Amino acid sequence: MIDPRGQETLTGSAQSEVFQILRDGQPRTRSELATLTGLARSTVAARVDSLLRAGLVRPVADAASTGGRPSRQFAFDGGGLGVLGVDVGATHVHIGLSDLRGRLLTDTATSLAVSEGPDKVLGWVVDEGRRLLADHGNGEFLRGVGVGLPGPVEHTTGRPVDPPIMPGWDRFDVTGLLTDAFAVPVLVDNDVNVMALGERIDHWPDVDDLLFVKVSTGIGAGVISSGRLQRGAQGIAGDIGHVYVPGREDVQCRCGNSGCLEAVAAGPAIAAALRGEGLDVHTVQDVATAVTQGDVAAVRAVREAGRVLGQVLTACVSLVNPAVIVLGGPIASAGDHLLAGAREVIYTRSTPIATGSLQIVRSRGTDKAAVSGASSMAIQHVLSVDGVEALLREATA
Amino acid sequence: MIDPRGQETLTGSAQSEVFQILRDGQPRTRSELATLTGLARSTVAARVDSLLRAGLVRPVADAASTGGRPSRQFAFDGGGLGVLGVDVGATHVHIGLSDLRGRLLTDTATSLAVSEGPDKVLGWVVDEGRRLLADHGNGEFLRGVGVGLPGPVEHTTGRPVDPPIMPGWDRFDVTGLLTDAFAVPVLVDNDVNVMALGERIDHWPDVDDLLFVKVSTGIGAGVISSGRLQRGAQGIAGDIGHVYVPGREDVQCRCGNSGCLEAVAAGPAIAAALRGEGLDVHTVQDVATAVTQGDVAAVRAVREAGRVLGQVLTACVSLVNPAVIVLGGPIASAGDHLLAGAREVIYTRSTPIATGSLQIVRSRGTDKAAVSGASSMAIQHVLSVDGVEALLREATA
Repeated sequence: MIDPRGQETLTGSAQSEVFQILRDGQPRTRSELATLTGLARSTVAARVDSLLRAGLVRPVADAASTGGRPSRQFAFDGGGLGVLGVDVGATHVHIGLSDLRGRLLTDTATSLAVSEGPDKVLGWVVDEGRRLLADHGNGEFLRGVGVGLPGPVEHTTGRPVDPPIMPGWDRFDVTGLLTDAFAVPVLVDNDVNVMALGERIDHWPDVDDLLFVKVSTGIGAGVISSGRLQRGAQGIAGDIGHVYVPGREDVQCRCGNSGCLEAVAAGPAIAAALRGEGLDVHTVQDVATAVTQGDVAAVRAVREAGRVLGQVLTACVSLVNPAVIVLGGPIASAGDHLLAGAREVIYTRSTPIATGSLQIVRSRGTDKAAVSGASSMAIQHVLSVDGVEALLREATA
Repeated sequence: MIDPRGQETLTGSAQSEVFQILRDGQPRTRSELATLTGLARSTVAARVDSLLRAGLVRPVADAASTGGRPSRQFAFDGGGLGVLGVDVGATHVHIGLSDLRGRLLTDTATSLAVSEGPDKVLGWVVDEGRRLLADHGNGEFLRGVGVGLPGPVEHTTGRPVDPPIMPGWDRFDVTGLLTDAFAVPVLVDNDVNVMALGERIDHWPDVDDLLFVKVSTGIGAGVISSGRLQRGAQGIAGDIGHVYVPGREDVQCRCGNSGCLEAVAAGPAIAAALRGEGLDVHTVQDVATAVTQGDVAAVRAVREAGRVLGQVLTACVSLVNPAVIVLGGPIASAGDHLLAGAREVIYTRSTPIATGSLQIVRSRGTDKAAVSGASSMAIQHVLSVDGVEALLREATA
């Protein structure tokens, strides 16, 4: 009955223990590290040397010392290594270079439809990534790449799976192409998970249970429980776009079922309803613009979409008991109407104990949020036990 | 942007590193432990001594040695220490004594209504717990107590919160009373979480994403994601009994809302519907009995309850993407009818990728499952980094 998995993690952690202690950024001497870890002094000295060679740790001048004496304290150095964060949207691509502290150093974006296919989109990513890196001196700086894609991704392989708005991408080896180009670990996930990570890291670092919901051409969620992005058994946790909305069997969904949440409440459904009222709206962005301009029919339709979304989210609130629900995407950003509809239903229909301190808010992420989330996914990997071990092996070799 | 929490865990783990390596049960010498951990030999020797004194580790005779020479290998010894697991049900109490490997050594149960109040119920637990322990020699054996209660529990304090079927228990200090009686750490949780843990440990040890759903007088779920029981922000994750079932606004729930899942599909609702058809059923057990006897109306009502449950579970499937859903409680155990209804809706309404390898099954837990889950909750605590540190401090003092 003893779970053997805990042990593996702990044994692994022992290997990079010195680094994991230094990771908080506080400078420490070799002697302090030996006391904190219980490791032999010679072991600590060897590990500090490896960390210095790997560029993960820097010597820090002793505060009391002003002369040229060699420094004896060491601290995490997130500035000397970095990652690329890539946000592939339906109609844009955005890439940024960050250091291991998550500080964005430089970024660039372009209008490019994902439907142009992986060769064109990833070709741009490789070219621009190399250009950003060239400005940063050398190839040694880059340690990982994180990518968000606007469709379902098999996380273990990094391949898109039946992505509806991404012709040519199905099962495409995104990880392989980018690993060949950059020769570092590449992590690929869907854009909603990436935005959930970005939102939490940038705005809710102390919240361990957070639901990020994106309403755009589809509807999807990123689920963070116990401080960790949950992917579920097949990696599709949060895929709430096809939850059945009772009473809406009249609405056909592109998935083949009827009454799916996104067939009722996502951008195209709202646009279609508004066209029925004589408005000239087609895209998600059109809907957002109409709402921003105060069009009464658009405001009413978005608020009703918020109510339908809220209906599905009440079950989610009961199941995972989040502290925060963040609504993102262009329609959520266009005023408080989607939010108001969702709040109305969730606060009415959920139990008081679940909603007593539940915050339901609009995304505070800027247009750089997805790049920030993709970068943080890569940074988490680089600084994980396995990632640090890989850097140390390389530095020692 | 660097999450400082990972670091604390890893630093903490370093403290009990020797034990965490020995926990897999494989015997190792002090020298092997020094190599595996990188700890100084003197540190390893001191820690092994502490672990021996704490009773967590035993010397193992070298296989090659047959004489009286002192043994040099050490291994985890789960047999010398143990925990009490307590299952408080609506109408019964069950207590078992297990060793730290989770092997049930002895147990006893009684018919006792939880509505008799905490003094009577916990009085029985203390008396019987002491009796079970007396048969096991000495007070040194016991290292923890785990308790499952049939109502909402604030996990951090172990106090029941507004428990509907537990008069006299609201905010009662269960942890305090049992800590005073047994002088060991006491962990209290609701029975559904405890059964989810027991179900996973006993039957699905390799499944990291599991939903356990209990249908009884109420309906609740235990959510295991990434191998971990998820409690959510307020500790009420899985509290799905009051999710709104659209179209059933006619049904009043005891919570004050209408159309709640458990007001439509739990035992009392099924019993009320059957009384409307002239059957003499009142309790959950009556419903289970009628189904077992093949009463057509009862079978039909339970199958319909399964469909309603399935409707709520489709949203849960999309959100957390479990590999297994286990249905428990007396009605689930009375044949495959509840299961069939739930499967029908979940397999129809969820996306193929979510249900392709989703198993929906009846609980395989015996009447000892809740005791097993309560014990494992206590064992996990005792063998955690903090738990082992506490044992070592005590052994060193």
